[in-house]
Amino acid sequence: MGTTPDAHWAIGLDIGGTKIAAGIVDEAGKLLHRAQLSTPGSSPQQVEQAVVDLVTGLRRWAPRAPIGVGAAGWMNPETGTVLFSPHLAWRNEPLRDRLATVLGGTVCVVNDADAAGWAEYRFGAGQGEPNLVCLTLGTGIGGSLVAGGQLRRGRFGLAGEFGHQVIHPGGHRCECGNRGCWEQYASGNALGREGRELARANSPVAHTLLDAAEGDVEAINGALVTELAAAGDPACQELIIDAGQWLGLGLANLAAALDPGTFVIGGGLGSASTRLLEEAETSYRKNLTGRGYRPFADIRQAGLGADAGLIGAADLARQTG
Amino acid sequence: MGTTPDAHWAIGLDIGGTKIAAGIVDEAGKLLHRAQLSTPGSSPQQVEQAVVDLVTGLRRWAPRAPIGVGAAGWMNPETGTVLFSPHLAWRNEPLRDRLATVLGGTVCVVNDADAAGWAEYRFGAGQGEPNLVCLTLGTGIGGSLVAGGQLRRGRFGLAGEFGHQVIHPGGHRCECGNRGCWEQYASGNALGREGRELARANSPVAHTLLDAAEGDVEAINGALVTELAAAGDPACQELIIDAGQWLGLGLANLAAALDPGTFVIGGGLGSASTRLLEEAETSYRKNLTGRGYRPFADIRQAGLGADAGLIGAADLARQTG
Repeated sequence: MGTTPDAHWAIGLDIGGTKIAAGIVDEAGKLLHRAQLSTPGSSPQQVEQAVVDLVTGLRRWAPRAPIGVGAAGWMNPETGTVLFSPHLAWRNEPLRDRLATVLGGTVCVVNDADAAGWAEYRFGAGQGEPNLVCLTLGTGIGGSLVAGGQLRRGRFGLAGEFGHQVIHPGGHRCECGNRGCWEQYASGNALGREGRELARANSPVAHTLLDAAEGDVEAINGALVTELAAAGDPACQELIIDAGQWLGLGLANLAAALDPGTFVIGGGLGSASTRLLEEAETSYRKNLTGRGYRPFADIRQAGLGADAGLIGAADLARQTG
Repeated sequence: MGTTPDAHWAIGLDIGGTKIAAGIVDEAGKLLHRAQLSTPGSSPQQVEQAVVDLVTGLRRWAPRAPIGVGAAGWMNPETGTVLFSPHLAWRNEPLRDRLATVLGGTVCVVNDADAAGWAEYRFGAGQGEPNLVCLTLGTGIGGSLVAGGQLRRGRFGLAGEFGHQVIHPGGHRCECGNRGCWEQYASGNALGREGRELARANSPVAHTLLDAAEGDVEAINGALVTELAAAGDPACQELIIDAGQWLGLGLANLAAALDPGTFVIGGGLGSASTRLLEEAETSYRKNLTGRGYRPFADIRQAGLGADAGLIGAADLARQTG
């Protein structure tokens, strides 16, 4: 690396369903060193061992750095316990204390969408905007809220689950158990479901999509729909437009409640489709309550890419440690 | 009053569509002296003159008290300008500066739901809860958000318009111009509309309602439906139950986004119907995303009644002045 360890460096990790990314992050949010491992199954012990291995490796360069761990799921920020994680077998797992016991030093455990949003606020597309809503638009919709320049996690640490606002009562069943959640209409999973439904209808407009999936309806997912839309397929473009309209309606709802100055939208789908964001902005402007008597918030694509989560986790650890 | 003026007293006003209430409020939120006038038409000049008259009267007891003015509408908290008020003819009205010029001293202009919510946080049913959502449930749904012990008004001062979150796309037209806003399903106006529709259907179950309205369908409003429900009319009770279920669904949505520790519900309808709140709580618990893995927020009836707005406006002025 060519630099001497700095007292202000921090180590960030982002535990996903398929991989665990880790890095040393400096005070300006720059990622100085990066490492990653495949997520080893879903057992808490195996995941925690992988985290320990990654941190041990990075500590050669940053021996006393505080450690921030982001993961999908619900964290109690006071106790560092993972209440529930959708992709990993964590239920009331005392992650912070277990890692602190093995690793020593400061360990901080945060929700991955909170970490990504915080990174965008500090170093990315949300810089300078103390009233910010960030969305991580991937298979679902993760979210975070910055108000008055601070991350707001609510009373129990669970704020920002914007994707589970019911926007269509009685609508599609969501992984959370409810029906009609926003993320069932404006996410990668929604695009995949609509693509499969279109293909099953065997409409002539679906032939490009079916061909791209080699005739296997079950192989159609949000990424494929997004890719074909970008390549010009009209049917997939229609699906992107539908999702964008739902996305914009949800943004208008969030603006009614929270009145942010800026929305930052990242995640796999948010980064992949500018068309989706354009459509969302049109829909947001058409649906914002009181339009004409109030300013519109900016809608911006995220600036930090897939490393936002680990950068934000590191920065939150630095502020704690 | 028997007490000498106190340097910590403040004057609060609440400008409504039918009356303007004013009072001197001490540091503990106690209302020491109260006055009110009918709202004189909707002209900004007449309303401002009534405010000046009320303040001049109260200043006999509190000559140097800061002045907080709450009103329905959108305020720019930085400039004290009323961008828009639904019941009054204010459009980009520099209310704070106009009043400060005539009255002298500190004048602070706030949204009425923000003022009421702040009062409940400081002195009412939300005391001790730094992550609080307050709803003013009347003809519509006003709202306010306290996070980290501070009122959060968003980037442009317009946060808390929870009633205009679209919960039923394509549904009933709202006064805001959109379709399907929450307040079209869970407010006094919603109860009135449903009551009139039931009466027009001329169903046998509507006869009590029609009789109470002396056969005049247009005379049916939310207050009448609430009153008959409380008196035991099964049809009106059904309407209260429907509204409560929508109310609870919206509370679950707000909990997904904001994760408050407590909801405080006041306003004319919120105070009049405990049955509505019970039904809302059942529906909230049935619709909360992640139920079973997270605590439920408390749902409480507001504690300060109709004077919450002026008490909160006074307290916010005290903090500014």
